[in-house]
Amino acid sequence: MKKLLYGVAYYDEYMPYDRLDQDIRMMKEAGINVVRIAESTWSTHEPQNGVFDFTSVDRVLNAMHEAGIHVIVGTPTYAVPTWMVKQHPDILATTENGPGKYGARQIMDITHPAYLFYAERIIRKLISRVCKHPAVIGYQTDNETKHYHTAGPNVQLQFVKYIREKFKSLDELNKTFGLDYWSNRINSWEDFPSVVGTINGSLGAEFAKFQRKLVTDFLSWQVSIVNEYKQPHQFVTQNFDFEWRGYSYGVQPDVDHFAASKPFDITGVDIYHPSQDDLTGIEISFGGDMARSTKGTNYLVLETEAQAFLNWVPYLGQLRLQAFSHLASGANMVAYWHWHSIHNSFETYWKGLLSHDFEPNPVYNEAKTIGADFARLSDKLVNLQKTNRTAILVSNESLTAMEWFKFSFTSTKKYNDVVRLVYDELYRMNVGCDFVDASAEHFDGYDLLVVPALYTASDRLLERLNDFVRRGGHIVYTFKSGFTDENVKVRTVRQPGIISEACGIAYQMFVEPKRVTLKDNPFNVEPEHNEVHTWMELITPDTAEVLAYYDHPHWGQYAAITQNEYGKGMAIYIGCMVSPQVMNKILAHAVIQVGLWGADQKLAFPLITKTGVNEAGKTIRYYFNYSDHPAELVYLHRQGMELFEDSKVQNGQTIGVERWGVKIIEEG
Amino acid sequence: MKKLLYGVAYYDEYMPYDRLDQDIRMMKEAGINVVRIAESTWSTHEPQNGVFDFTSVDRVLNAMHEAGIHVIVGTPTYAVPTWMVKQHPDILATTENGPGKYGARQIMDITHPAYLFYAERIIRKLISRVCKHPAVIGYQTDNETKHYHTAGPNVQLQFVKYIREKFKSLDELNKTFGLDYWSNRINSWEDFPSVVGTINGSLGAEFAKFQRKLVTDFLSWQVSIVNEYKQPHQFVTQNFDFEWRGYSYGVQPDVDHFAASKPFDITGVDIYHPSQDDLTGIEISFGGDMARSTKGTNYLVLETEAQAFLNWVPYLGQLRLQAFSHLASGANMVAYWHWHSIHNSFETYWKGLLSHDFEPNPVYNEAKTIGADFARLSDKLVNLQKTNRTAILVSNESLTAMEWFKFSFTSTKKYNDVVRLVYDELYRMNVGCDFVDASAEHFDGYDLLVVPALYTASDRLLERLNDFVRRGGHIVYTFKSGFTDENVKVRTVRQPGIISEACGIAYQMFVEPKRVTLKDNPFNVEPEHNEVHTWMELITPDTAEVLAYYDHPHWGQYAAITQNEYGKGMAIYIGCMVSPQVMNKILAHAVIQVGLWGADQKLAFPLITKTGVNEAGKTIRYYFNYSDHPAELVYLHRQGMELFEDSKVQNGQTIGVERWGVKIIEEG
Amino acid sequence: MKKLLYGVAYYDEYMPYDRLDQDIRMMKEAGINVVRIAESTWSTHEPQNGVFDFTSVDRVLNAMHEAGIHVIVGTPTYAVPTWMVKQHPDILATTENGPGKYGARQIMDITHPAYLFYAERIIRKLISRVCKHPAVIGYQTDNETKHYHTAGPNVQLQFVKYIREKFKSLDELNKTFGLDYWSNRINSWEDFPSVVGTINGSLGAEFAKFQRKLVTDFLSWQVSIVNEYKQPHQFVTQNFDFEWRGYSYGVQPDVDHFAASKPFDITGVDIYHPSQDDLTGIEISFGGDMARSTKGTNYLVLETEAQAFLNWVPYLGQLRLQAFSHLASGANMVAYWHWHSIHNSFETYWKGLLSHDFEPNPVYNEAKTIGADFARLSDKLVNLQKTNRTAILVSNESLTAMEWFKFSFTSTKKYNDVVRLVYDELYRMNVGCDFVDASAEHFDGYDLLVVPALYTASDRLLERLNDFVRRGGHIVYTFKSGFTDENVKVRTVRQPGIISEACGIAYQMFVEPKRVTLKDNPFNVEPEHNEVHTWMELITPDTAEVLAYYDHPHWGQYAAITQNEYGKGMAIYIGCMVSPQVMNKILAHAVIQVGLWGADQKLAFPLITKTGVNEAGKTIRYYFNYSDHPAELVYLHRQGMELFEDSKVQNGQTIGVERWGVKIIEEG
Repeated sequence: MKKLLYGVAYYDEYMPYDRLDQDIRMMKEAGINVVRIAESTWSTHEPQNGVFDFTSVDRVLNAMHEAGIHVIVGTPTYAVPTWMVKQHPDILATTENGPGKYGARQIMDITHPAYLFYAERIIRKLISRVCKHPAVIGYQTDNETKHYHTAGPNVQLQFVKYIREKFKSLDELNKTFGLDYWSNRINSWEDFPSVVGTINGSLGAEFAKFQRKLVTDFLSWQVSIVNEYKQPHQFVTQNFDFEWRGYSYGVQPDVDHFAASKPFDITGVDIYHPSQDDLTGIEISFGGDMARSTKGTNYLVLETEAQAFLNWVPYLGQLRLQAFSHLASGANMVAYWHWHSIHNSFETYWKGLLSHDFEPNPVYNEAKTIGADFARLSDKLVNLQKTNRTAILVSNESLTAMEWFKFSFTSTKKYNDVVRLVYDELYRMNVGCDFVDASAEHFDGYDLLVVPALYTASDRLLERLNDFVRRGGHIVYTFKSGFTDENVKVRTVRQPGIISEACGIAYQMFVEPKRVTLKDNPFNVEPEHNEVHTWMELITPDTAEVLAYYDHPHWGQYAAITQNEYGKGMAIYIGCMVSPQVMNKILAHAVIQVGLWGADQKLAFPLITKTGVNEAGKTIRYYFNYSDHPAELVYLHRQGMELFEDSKVQNGQTIGVERWGVKIIEEG
Repeated sequence: MKKLLYGVAYYDEYMPYDRLDQDIRMMKEAGINVVRIAESTWSTHEPQNGVFDFTSVDRVLNAMHEAGIHVIVGTPTYAVPTWMVKQHPDILATTENGPGKYGARQIMDITHPAYLFYAERIIRKLISRVCKHPAVIGYQTDNETKHYHTAGPNVQLQFVKYIREKFKSLDELNKTFGLDYWSNRINSWEDFPSVVGTINGSLGAEFAKFQRKLVTDFLSWQVSIVNEYKQPHQFVTQNFDFEWRGYSYGVQPDVDHFAASKPFDITGVDIYHPSQDDLTGIEISFGGDMARSTKGTNYLVLETEAQAFLNWVPYLGQLRLQAFSHLASGANMVAYWHWHSIHNSFETYWKGLLSHDFEPNPVYNEAKTIGADFARLSDKLVNLQKTNRTAILVSNESLTAMEWFKFSFTSTKKYNDVVRLVYDELYRMNVGCDFVDASAEHFDGYDLLVVPALYTASDRLLERLNDFVRRGGHIVYTFKSGFTDENVKVRTVRQPGIISEACGIAYQMFVEPKRVTLKDNPFNVEPEHNEVHTWMELITPDTAEVLAYYDHPHWGQYAAITQNEYGKGMAIYIGCMVSPQVMNKILAHAVIQVGLWGADQKLAFPLITKTGVNEAGKTIRYYFNYSDHPAELVYLHRQGMELFEDSKVQNGQTIGVERWGVKIIEEG
Repeated sequence: MKKLLYGVAYYDEYMPYDRLDQDIRMMKEAGINVVRIAESTWSTHEPQNGVFDFTSVDRVLNAMHEAGIHVIVGTPTYAVPTWMVKQHPDILATTENGPGKYGARQIMDITHPAYLFYAERIIRKLISRVCKHPAVIGYQTDNETKHYHTAGPNVQLQFVKYIREKFKSLDELNKTFGLDYWSNRINSWEDFPSVVGTINGSLGAEFAKFQRKLVTDFLSWQVSIVNEYKQPHQFVTQNFDFEWRGYSYGVQPDVDHFAASKPFDITGVDIYHPSQDDLTGIEISFGGDMARSTKGTNYLVLETEAQAFLNWVPYLGQLRLQAFSHLASGANMVAYWHWHSIHNSFETYWKGLLSHDFEPNPVYNEAKTIGADFARLSDKLVNLQKTNRTAILVSNESLTAMEWFKFSFTSTKKYNDVVRLVYDELYRMNVGCDFVDASAEHFDGYDLLVVPALYTASDRLLERLNDFVRRGGHIVYTFKSGFTDENVKVRTVRQPGIISEACGIAYQMFVEPKRVTLKDNPFNVEPEHNEVHTWMELITPDTAEVLAYYDHPHWGQYAAITQNEYGKGMAIYIGCMVSPQVMNKILAHAVIQVGLWGADQKLAFPLITKTGVNEAGKTIRYYFNYSDHPAELVYLHRQGMELFEDSKVQNGQTIGVERWGVKIIEEG
């Protein structure tokens, strides 16, 4: 990327009246230099089967170009036209809940050949038309693609073939997945039942993996088509999103981001987060770290909230804080969904930079300052290179398997709660981190790996992890790690199985804690934070040192948290769900041990700092105040320039940061 | 109506043994002078296709006539016989949940020609048979008719024709409803999808409106048939009911009461309400005001609770209190559902005036006193004319639209919560009111309009409201009013759009309040009642005076509640969900300003007073004590007679009212 | 039974590797002398239609025999193979939720002839093969059989024939079930609708009864087949289970245990219960009393928890406490589900005696002490004969009817809550009891009957109960008893109908109590325990003495609890849902009155004692400490020997019982 992009999604098609010129004028005033178009409006561009109308695309491209605004063109395939479903009702994905109904987006079977035929045709028509247009800098394939739980008979048939390819023999399958249980054996390929009703967690998890592969394949297929037209200076991207809990919460269950991002030139993401008093920056950081980690480089934020969804209007300063937070994680583009609030339909309260009245408003006015600063500071802030010594190992497979095997009958905790428990505390202590997944060839370059709930993992992965420790790495594991193999088959040895070696512990039993604390409050937290919940493993240390025992009349002899020297490294094992406060202490302990505790750790949330190196090779240091009160901090790095005020900052100097404020210092 | 009617629903068909003579004897003792029959027992009257048996109707009519008890005959069309569904399974309404199952009532497609054929036949058979019987004073068509969410392919087809009639062109439709969004455009009539799955709020709301029209049409059709047989002294009515929250709560979502009541001679309603310590009289008053407002005159309470549904047996005195409360709102008839408790099936615990033992019981004994008083006071209490200077504007369309666009992801508040928030406080301060709806030609005759959450309204309606203020009227609006047009399309100007003119305000942003109060407690309520919740609009006054600002570190500059002089009138705008206590203060403020604050406002809930003028032209004043403790009040009107005790009451005299008691004073 | 059986369910088929020899060695070390096999693995034994493979059965039988371990062989019919469902999809039960999906167990239509054909064939193949094997001591038919809500068209057809057989004429049916209501009359057999959608509680309850009969018939049919092969020394049993609320809670809604157990040689049960701090022994006692009562003799515990399901690992001592608690209720066998934890599929966390690692663990180690004690004490503890003077009358029909007619719109209380309310208090006061049901010919032999919520009962049953009292028996009734006849038709006389005679009371009204207590705290409990909830009947005593009045401003004149002398006996009637503490006092009062209050009642929960007579005619007294603290008790019976320590115990001697401990004393 040559410069920072500041953008919006723009829908000329949704406009209640012709506003293109006015909109562009207002965009220019706000420093908007890129718009994303076309991804949602197939029915406008192909009003009838084979009848095409790209009027709105053409006019927007021309007008934008004239205004010097770039355009990213989306392939409009995630929302299917009425005529298509009327003609081919079975294009709608059949899911575990039965056949689909027309109306929403993302309701089709992404493997259906009729859908693929039409999708390919509109892609070729659109992309061939726009690819030479000077406004176009890149493409987005589809939109927040997932598998939509497609599981009809045709998908089941593909799955059977996939299984046959993978396992070769039914005997192998039956044995690996334990299908003798409850008479689920499949003794002839013809007998393979639809897995929609299966109770076999191994089979169910494999089907989820297969469904994620459908997404990877579908996106790869779209990219291959777009690539036929793509010009050398253009890119193809995709806007990945995250587990949704009313906002972008954690690892996406339905897409394997690492695999699916491969064919793209650059990874894009959509990040939505709580705002107002609940704005912490965590989701911005989490989503950014994930996006950056997929390709180890900068990424695009293709969608983030403008005037916020539903009622989450940002406070004064927050829109700026958010924008620069994205940059600090390595984003080269920050784009809002969307320019204007929509007057009908569904996302009417998912408001744009403009309200329904199209007039300037406080949020738009703040965007103008961001646009101006992006333009002014682009050279210094674009293409920020970030190098982290810490990584979190995440696993779609573990996420799925833990849906099959929940903590208890009643617990609502899931895999991502564990991921966020560790991620959030690293964030709060200003330890930057990457994400890695099971496909990582090696973990070289990292000093510290944090491995939350790696419930499902191959022997090979676990041995690589042991090896990482042996050769001097540090790992912090949580409970549930190592429990099952890659087929969600529980290991037949003492737990945590293969990693017992590095962790120096074993356990055979686990219980749901009730009124259990850590003995003698070893991490010196408030009493209410010393309680453990949801899950506890009854650990017997072997070579490990015990960091915490349980305080309980019957389980008091068992260890809760241990650390073990192994080879040249160290493995910490956390056998129970602890409070964020205890997790913070454990991770701090690990960070100190591994030698990563530094000046940045003198700050802590709500004072957040992020660092990277810019194109000039200078270190850029962001300081964010994620609170409603002004704050001060002592700058402890080499002297530099604060970029907003263009003022010198000395080592040891006290800097003030406004509530919801940001400072950027370029060293040297 | 010539006299007060005191009645019960009576089901000879359900009797475990022949009790007709005994029942009539007990009815006479209780002063019952009307029964409603036949509306639930189609399968008894037509045991097989085309085979009719009206034995039970005949014998009840004859016996009632002999006893001097009137009969209202219902058309038995709301519960279909087994043979019909066996022969025509598709008579069952297909809804958004798929095909129906036989068993409950109100499960058929009220547009299905087979159903209509059978319905017409049984109506003609029954009504032609009974219309000349001297016992019959009127008819009820069907029962609590609604559309039962019928949405099968045939209904979808009718809807497409309805849409084509309304919008003429698809371009117009696509534009008006914003169907470009998410590729929902319909570019050929053949492509029109079933709207069961739609995510387009405009389309969904239009379908709901269409479904309500089906009810209006169906009832009108039934009335037209019954009218062929109706004798001059007979009437046709329908028992409308209300949004159900375990009791009659608010505006009925599925029926447009104003439109549907047109063909009827007199409006009837069913009102069920909490009892015992939770008896407030609000639902009686609400339902009565609605029924009276449909035709601006007296109405019938065709069903209300007897020994109460499930476990809500009334306390001593409550049945009387309820009966006279109905009269005080303008009812000419109070009928219980039902005479006797049912021994099988479903509503076994929805008890009648008699328990399952058919013996006298405390509730029945109290009914005897009511019946006696109804008879004795009929001339003075029947045909009470009520004139209110205050009206509440309600809107089925806003109700539906706010189902599509809820306050937030999690809020359970709905349109009717806002309606009840204003209605209840008017009730508590003894301000009588009517209801009007969007179809009202004008608002002449009212001094004060209260307009809760008029989310959906045509320009024309809003301009009429502006005009009402301009010409001297007062309006109290709540938040959300004026936001979208009649097609649920958000207005493209600053909010609240057209009514900004009368309100003298504008806003662009709205948020969900968290720990937000009204600055400086302007209405002087308990601190916990000064908090706002659910919704707040960030209002900038233009010409308006600010009655309350928000107290919040970021939104403190915005107004919460304003009032504005406009023309000769005044408009108050409440931009947030306030507590009942604050709403009370605001409405009291408005009532005072408009000059309606009088002697009755010296009383407040639980002391309720209602007024009207009887046939002799004398003012009747009801005083109710809705509490478990005896109360006293000072009578502040012209001298009169207390009708129960036949004693004189002077202006300024103190009157005692027993717990759950009632007094009626006829002036002059 | 010749000796105590200590067993496990064993699945050679599920083993990740060949472990048979190791498992048997570890079983022997734990004193396991019986295993149950084969009931879950049809697809292994018949991998394709008509292809049989009993390898695993053969090898396990041979190995077990060699080791001296008995085997119970299950018919593998409760979980159907993939090939069967692929070939005959309609074998899956169609329920009120529509057609089924393959995957889980217990999903087939147990009346489907194709299923029955295959089931019979595999039963004959398997049982004929194993019946002469010396390891085999008995058979289990199917597994936790229920009707799985089968309700498809074929089942509806059977139901119509069943109804016709029962009612002969439709007029009789219509009248008995009150089908005129809401036009539900059936006037021609052809019109009989599927009852899946019915709202008629009588019809719905009859269908539930019919479905329970399907279970009885199906089990009887299986037994008849197995009996053809059964050798003289072998038995046939079935593992009944209970209403499931995350554990075995109460009367099984879907099976009539008394009827279904008839064809079996011995009744078996599966009992799962809370553990750790929530272990009370109540479910062990409840399930045991039910199992013993079906045939009035000893029973088998075919499944109970080992290392506990999900996270409920027992504390040290609890596994022993549980095992001997089963014996104390009359069990001759205690078997765990299951030997080893499963590595895949669904019940992976429903752990066996062994963890997934197959190694000894604390729970297994405790089992070894149990096995040793079972072996050592078998002669003294086997075939314990228990004689109780108290019985609880339970009723599947009342359970179902109270599902149709719930306490209120919102209450979650059900029939079994009332059963457990009385059962638990008898348990806590160490009053042993049996269960009887409506089919009991007489209640001779009992001094005290407790009758919770006998909502549905024939005249004949109620008259027998009156007669029981008349002839000197004591009954404690709760509310809701006697309300409807056997067709769930409410009686047309004052309630509680026929039993009014013995109870000396009547009521016509009932309400949901809110802030209602018993006047003057007549049972002297803590104030918060004196409150009544959920349900209260407004009782007027006739000849009865009032034990408690309601304290309420309106219902204060009504009685809450009464007792009445009638003939030579006494009937107590509890008209409201009371606290456990009050129920305890009422039942204690009844137990004292009836002369059953004795030495054992000086102990109370958590000190539990159970008694019986062993084969030598000596009285065996168990003492259990269901608490986390050691306890002492004074032994108040004839001198005896404590069997674990083989030490003498004198009358009056103080005995210590460890936390979660057990003592067994053999008198004389």
